[in-house]
Amino acid sequence: MPGRRARGKAAGMTLADLTEEQLLARITPRLPGGPGVLVGPGDDTAVLRCDAATIITTDAAVRGRDWRDDWSTPGDVGAKIVAQNLADVAAMGGRPLGLVVTLLADPATTVAWVEGFADGLGEAARTAGAAVLGGDLSSAPPGTLAVSVTALGTLDGQAPVLRSGACAGDQVAVAGTLGRSAAGLLLLERGRPELDEELVATHRRPQPPLAEGPRAGAAGAAGMLDISDGLLRDGARIASASGVALDLSREALAPYAARLAPAVGADDAWECVLGGGEEHSLLACFAGPVPAGWTVIGMVRTGAGVLLDGIPQAPRGWDHFRR
Amino acid sequence: MPGRRARGKAAGMTLADLTEEQLLARITPRLPGGPGVLVGPGDDTAVLRCDAATIITTDAAVRGRDWRDDWSTPGDVGAKIVAQNLADVAAMGGRPLGLVVTLLADPATTVAWVEGFADGLGEAARTAGAAVLGGDLSSAPPGTLAVSVTALGTLDGQAPVLRSGACAGDQVAVAGTLGRSAAGLLLLERGRPELDEELVATHRRPQPPLAEGPRAGAAGAAGMLDISDGLLRDGARIASASGVALDLSREALAPYAARLAPAVGADDAWECVLGGGEEHSLLACFAGPVPAGWTVIGMVRTGAGVLLDGIPQAPRGWDHFRR
Repeated sequence: MPGRRARGKAAGMTLADLTEEQLLARITPRLPGGPGVLVGPGDDTAVLRCDAATIITTDAAVRGRDWRDDWSTPGDVGAKIVAQNLADVAAMGGRPLGLVVTLLADPATTVAWVEGFADGLGEAARTAGAAVLGGDLSSAPPGTLAVSVTALGTLDGQAPVLRSGACAGDQVAVAGTLGRSAAGLLLLERGRPELDEELVATHRRPQPPLAEGPRAGAAGAAGMLDISDGLLRDGARIASASGVALDLSREALAPYAARLAPAVGADDAWECVLGGGEEHSLLACFAGPVPAGWTVIGMVRTGAGVLLDGIPQAPRGWDHFRR
Repeated sequence: MPGRRARGKAAGMTLADLTEEQLLARITPRLPGGPGVLVGPGDDTAVLRCDAATIITTDAAVRGRDWRDDWSTPGDVGAKIVAQNLADVAAMGGRPLGLVVTLLADPATTVAWVEGFADGLGEAARTAGAAVLGGDLSSAPPGTLAVSVTALGTLDGQAPVLRSGACAGDQVAVAGTLGRSAAGLLLLERGRPELDEELVATHRRPQPPLAEGPRAGAAGAAGMLDISDGLLRDGARIASASGVALDLSREALAPYAARLAPAVGADDAWECVLGGGEEHSLLACFAGPVPAGWTVIGMVRTGAGVLLDGIPQAPRGWDHFRR
């Protein structure tokens, strides 16, 4: 950043000061390619070496709804939109191959914001082994800034792990953390991020356990998804798609809540574990042994919905158009 | 629409009145599937049967920048965003397989708008043989409405037709119309759409000659793209990528201008032909015979940029962040 600021005029440069070509010339070098990229950014389309069964998913983020500029750096926003998308790939049992990115931006957006966004996005994609294949830049009304990613992946010959398929008697297990992103958001809302910087970091840049998706698929997982809208709400989706009930164990979840309680208090810690979104950990059901890296948090039973120690839970968590 | 209005309350219903699941239940039935869809909408991701060389492209549209609600119906917006994306697939010599769609919408957006958008998008995708694989719904700030599509396609074993590859001596040819979308927009801006409804219709719902892309690829086309930002600007992209000059013939272009002149006047007709964007016709260079469905409009020469009867032309056309 000192180097960038030293360039003087560049620090305040906005998208309106550059042509699309000039802007692309600043973004493209920040983004990883890969051996599967047959045609990269710069032509009408990219061309990617894919398998016969190709995974595709898309997820967007909007400033003011999905992030606040005073709480998230542009790099955080880039890393998070990649994490959200690649978690979906993992939740099918897949491995990411590549992605495209769309930026809808008020022309008054600074070039520095876009460069920081590209850095965070590029780094997250590179770490996950996903090539950035191209994208689209569009101008948007004053104040509007939104990003969208579409990710492609491969199942490497495995069957996809659907939300349906969970059976009574299966064990319910989670890979990754629970409630940390929501607890981190709570600390930001309370103006106390210093109370637990690890939680705030999870909110800013979730770290989905991407490798656990294919591993769970190989271990015969059924009824898998990533926790984007909260354990209860997403658990209810598995229950509904599979025609079963998920009975979670308060005792098994207690360590997750205990991790959060010192920072946010015991009651809110449980709310974060049960209702907290944007964690992007994986939730799956296993008829056989649960693989290493997964923690059993309940059982699949006949019935419907999500239970906690046998008691039905009202769905809570994030809904995009209603809160 | 009479049936819908008769439902009374439904006519004014907004996204804020529905859960995400309720909204998806209204959208999904409007969208085509297809035999290549191994997993459709509703799970973490879709799974699509793809070829080893898979085409991917993405393009967005923002209300107030890319369309006006008083000039375009929601169905027009849906059809146009599909056309834009599938034209890019065709411009690589590819055939569309499927797409995902993102909607960023102010919760005050009416459900009727979203249903109309889905109808237009679904119809355009169905006509082109592209399955709608899923998407994302996100709430956006007041007044904001934006749509984004990512399309996948196959080359059916052919090599991709890049923007590079044009050689001096090639013929420059176009498939599809020129300047009609820009002329239609001009009529809307002048408040005189009735002067030529066909032009206005092209602005609202461009009809890219999708089948001509693979046909041109099979005929050995090189240096192909779709005209999204104007003949001169896009022609300059082929020239730059190929390291050549494109010398266009005023005589060959005259019929395209003549088609527009009665509605917009002779001078503006030429501006529309040379600088008009969003036409999504295909522009390509051929060393051998030009296939049926293509019209020769010039020659590739040594040099740089785009010429008209040998005279260098300043680039003009659309740039997203500057106008």
